[in-house]
Amino acid sequence: LPGPFRLYLVTDRTLVAGGDLGRAVRRALLAVPPGTVGVQLREKDLAGRALLDLACALREITRAAGAPLLVNDRVDVALLCEADGVHLPADGMPIRDARRLLGPGRLIGVSTHAPAEIASAAAGGADFAVFGPVFATPSKAQYGPPLGTGALAAAVAASPLPVFALGGVEATTARACLAAGAAGIAAIRAGLGAPDPAVAVAELLRSMEDPPDG
Amino acid sequence: LPGPFRLYLVTDRTLVAGGDLGRAVRRALLAVPPGTVGVQLREKDLAGRALLDLACALREITRAAGAPLLVNDRVDVALLCEADGVHLPADGMPIRDARRLLGPGRLIGVSTHAPAEIASAAAGGADFAVFGPVFATPSKAQYGPPLGTGALAAAVAASPLPVFALGGVEATTARACLAAGAAGIAAIRAGLGAPDPAVAVAELLRSMEDPPDG
Repeated sequence: LPGPFRLYLVTDRTLVAGGDLGRAVRRALLAVPPGTVGVQLREKDLAGRALLDLACALREITRAAGAPLLVNDRVDVALLCEADGVHLPADGMPIRDARRLLGPGRLIGVSTHAPAEIASAAAGGADFAVFGPVFATPSKAQYGPPLGTGALAAAVAASPLPVFALGGVEATTARACLAAGAAGIAAIRAGLGAPDPAVAVAELLRSMEDPPDG
Repeated sequence: LPGPFRLYLVTDRTLVAGGDLGRAVRRALLAVPPGTVGVQLREKDLAGRALLDLACALREITRAAGAPLLVNDRVDVALLCEADGVHLPADGMPIRDARRLLGPGRLIGVSTHAPAEIASAAAGGADFAVFGPVFATPSKAQYGPPLGTGALAAAVAASPLPVFALGGVEATTARACLAAGAAGIAAIRAGLGAPDPAVAVAELLRSMEDPPDG
């Protein structure tokens, strides 16, 4: 198992062209093989009811496309919309607690910014880690300067979990992340935030499939 | 059952003298009969881990005092800290969904601002409603002008649920809320936000026990 999917699309509805997140997710999953692309619903400013409504809408769309859906932070919402799992931010609840509510059959992804956090996530029972920011990106400026592909390679080498590269990863840089050992890439702006997510996802997947010099 | 308790203390750690919410809750429950005072943990800005840590700390304190503990909004945190229930804000998840996760044995309180919202909460399976703002208060200014005790009386008369009066209720005005039919009062500033919550709670409870002209 190199990871539950290859491309992890993280939502930020404020970046979605036209503002319709459901449409963006539908476009993004239009032509992808089932299980290749996962979606993380991450809309931290939404209150319970609005978040649950959106989660249920995305659940229908992702289920129809055979795409795993994870909900950021809120295990209760993940359970209610029958998501495939939760994604825990660095300041989220402990993994063991999330697992206790979720049961063994669902995915837990964890946001990490250092190898020690990946080790801790593995010990807690996480299924995969997202590591970053690898490259510079406006939305991750709050997490400090980009760590680079060297740090990604070191993190992957020390990790018992599949690691996804996050932070400014695009079609032109996805290859370097895989070369560093990443199981896949995570994208916000370059995925659902792109002008046309269908085109963007196709390009990202193609960039990960081509042989290095092919 | 006039309600699960008579005084509902809602937290806002930014209003706590000295900033130690655990200490404030311990003081507040120092000398109250078990089951008389309930506590709602409501710290909307706290991330999952910090909120769960605080919930578990308050669970120990409230359990020792025989006081019910409810967690605002997050059913997952309520389940993990073994709270007695959840309190759903007006923009929180639907009551039926919360009940599905919580099971039948726990309390669901709901924030309401109109009789129709109380009826809807009752239909959804809530155990009690908080209604307000009854009087003027800085923290409830966002919900519009105070509704007054007349509106409270009308809401209570139409309500199948116990109704707690919220919004600027103090020891001097608690009596008027009970006279309007409220099952009890809810307090933020006048409870845990008071200079000494032990004194404040004793005064609030005493003001509710005295006969109208005694």
